[in-house]
Amino acid sequence: MSIAEEEQQRQRHPTCSKSSTFSAESYFATQPPPSTLEQDVERVREFIARQQKEGRRVVLVTSGGTTVPLELNVVRFLDNFSAGTRGATSAEYFLKAGYAVIFMHRQFSLQPFSRHYSHSTNPFLDFLEIHNGNGLPEITVASDKRRDLLEVLTAYQSVQQAGVMLTLTFVTVNDYLWLLRALSHEMSILGREAMYYLAAAVSDFFLPRQKMSQHKIQSGKGSLSIEMDQVPKILKPMVDEWTKDGFIVSFKLETDLGLLLPKSRAALERYGHQVVIGNDLHRRKFEVVFVSPKPTKPNGSATGDCCGPQFEESWLRIDMASPNPAGHVKEIEEDIVGELVRRHNQWIGINP
Amino acid sequence: MSIAEEEQQRQRHPTCSKSSTFSAESYFATQPPPSTLEQDVERVREFIARQQKEGRRVVLVTSGGTTVPLELNVVRFLDNFSAGTRGATSAEYFLKAGYAVIFMHRQFSLQPFSRHYSHSTNPFLDFLEIHNGNGLPEITVASDKRRDLLEVLTAYQSVQQAGVMLTLTFVTVNDYLWLLRALSHEMSILGREAMYYLAAAVSDFFLPRQKMSQHKIQSGKGSLSIEMDQVPKILKPMVDEWTKDGFIVSFKLETDLGLLLPKSRAALERYGHQVVIGNDLHRRKFEVVFVSPKPTKPNGSATGDCCGPQFEESWLRIDMASPNPAGHVKEIEEDIVGELVRRHNQWIGINP
Repeated sequence: MSIAEEEQQRQRHPTCSKSSTFSAESYFATQPPPSTLEQDVERVREFIARQQKEGRRVVLVTSGGTTVPLELNVVRFLDNFSAGTRGATSAEYFLKAGYAVIFMHRQFSLQPFSRHYSHSTNPFLDFLEIHNGNGLPEITVASDKRRDLLEVLTAYQSVQQAGVMLTLTFVTVNDYLWLLRALSHEMSILGREAMYYLAAAVSDFFLPRQKMSQHKIQSGKGSLSIEMDQVPKILKPMVDEWTKDGFIVSFKLETDLGLLLPKSRAALERYGHQVVIGNDLHRRKFEVVFVSPKPTKPNGSATGDCCGPQFEESWLRIDMASPNPAGHVKEIEEDIVGELVRRHNQWIGINP
Repeated sequence: MSIAEEEQQRQRHPTCSKSSTFSAESYFATQPPPSTLEQDVERVREFIARQQKEGRRVVLVTSGGTTVPLELNVVRFLDNFSAGTRGATSAEYFLKAGYAVIFMHRQFSLQPFSRHYSHSTNPFLDFLEIHNGNGLPEITVASDKRRDLLEVLTAYQSVQQAGVMLTLTFVTVNDYLWLLRALSHEMSILGREAMYYLAAAVSDFFLPRQKMSQHKIQSGKGSLSIEMDQVPKILKPMVDEWTKDGFIVSFKLETDLGLLLPKSRAALERYGHQVVIGNDLHRRKFEVVFVSPKPTKPNGSATGDCCGPQFEESWLRIDMASPNPAGHVKEIEEDIVGELVRRHNQWIGINP
């Protein structure tokens, strides 16, 4: 069905609008792009060209939740839980592993490096000291905080100097979808050297612009009722069209452990990408599962027998009780990134 | 109608659940308190006792948006727009004016002092310098950033030393409602010396715990439909019962300028508190309107004639184009707080 036909059908059957589903194509044909899109794409293009020239692989890390505005003049919105810890932490380890990072995150979600100094849990104002003397007083970092900060600051400064991280922000699910499509196009020139690490918590639902209320929804008229449409499954066109050779890692977050593997496998089957990382909301800091297609034999058939499973799983767990030699608790993202770099090597064709 | 009767009626007419409205009483009888409530109240009680002993007035500043979780294992929630700028900025000016501040804010929203160094717009890692020498390198603040930071840091450190700010956090609208009720009770012993500056953006709707989904709502089943109930209007019991003598300031945010005055007046009429500050979403940084009841004559009648308006309005505007002598752009919260302190003086019975 063409976009025009889909649109017509929606208009002809307004009572069917409940279950209208947008294809990726009709989504982008009917929902407006964010105003900053072109400018962002320009920055990405320059960044990628430079990284390519300097021989670096590039990973796109998406991070944080997306919002679904309920009003055009936004006051209320639907949101997804995500502080952005997974994305911000992983980005640091990708940088450490020599990747250039495009960090595409929800405004105000955690960012690499500064994440260690949350205003709530470790406010930086608490470890600054004023030293009065002649002229303008000096401000220094208290000695007991200096060692940890030095490590973070040194890494941060070297990333800034080398110009290997580009930060982009989104707020709504619409911003996210437009940005992801544009960036996939730009990164596709890197072929197999491009990795996509899609850690953002993206809404499954959205409210088409055409259905939004102009002003703040007024209370005092009883209860609030919202009908939302499904967000198109854009991993499909991403894999099939936008970036055919990219190494794509998506995430599946569930609260019901029993659904984790079935839903991760279903996603792989549906979209045909490289890895789904499944995680349970309450165990995600110390346990994840990598689900991927079974490797094919040289003749193209799966290594399993004809009727065996098409997918393989491997669990990754860390021991949170024992700190490493530097006194820090290990972060599971260190091992997730290590494993992905290994698999990306294979994907590119470099044997370990 | 008693709570039991209200509850019975809801159960008897499940099809009427759409328009079920909770009274404040039935809300607190059916929705569970946050697990940290008692501990928070304990801290508040000690704080207030100390401020009272030291002869300080106390203002409760609420700030940031509230969430409405859609699932018991929360992944998705409805949110209200608010970075918490109004509350965090105003808290600084209340402290400057000699008030002790209970800063009750949405987790991760802006906070007094640290608000000047947002990780996105003014990241503090950018102005730290490493100085290598003998032993552990020193970290200092770059000289071009030092003057501004000194001002903020000096104020922050003196507030910490004097112990005149207590910070509490909330996330959901349920956390907010329980905390507000408990704090109003605690602060009521201050009588007219207590001010309430209710700048948080509180949801008008909520999903009763009894209607929540246990696990993440699954997509793939068509559109999402949510029916929410109205949050009880708790300003009413706050004024009438919880803190009869407190000086209460509420906010009205609208996107349609034409609704601002009518809705502000309606709020005053309904709840009978002292001031509504009306602000338009797009003009709130440089223009607000104070709406308050007309002062009564000594004999108790309003100063207006019998049929004139019961309320008076005064607009407060600042000129954002001209920076003050220190080179900073003026913040409207400075004047809002100045005006409120003047009115609070009158309320307490101190003539200017």
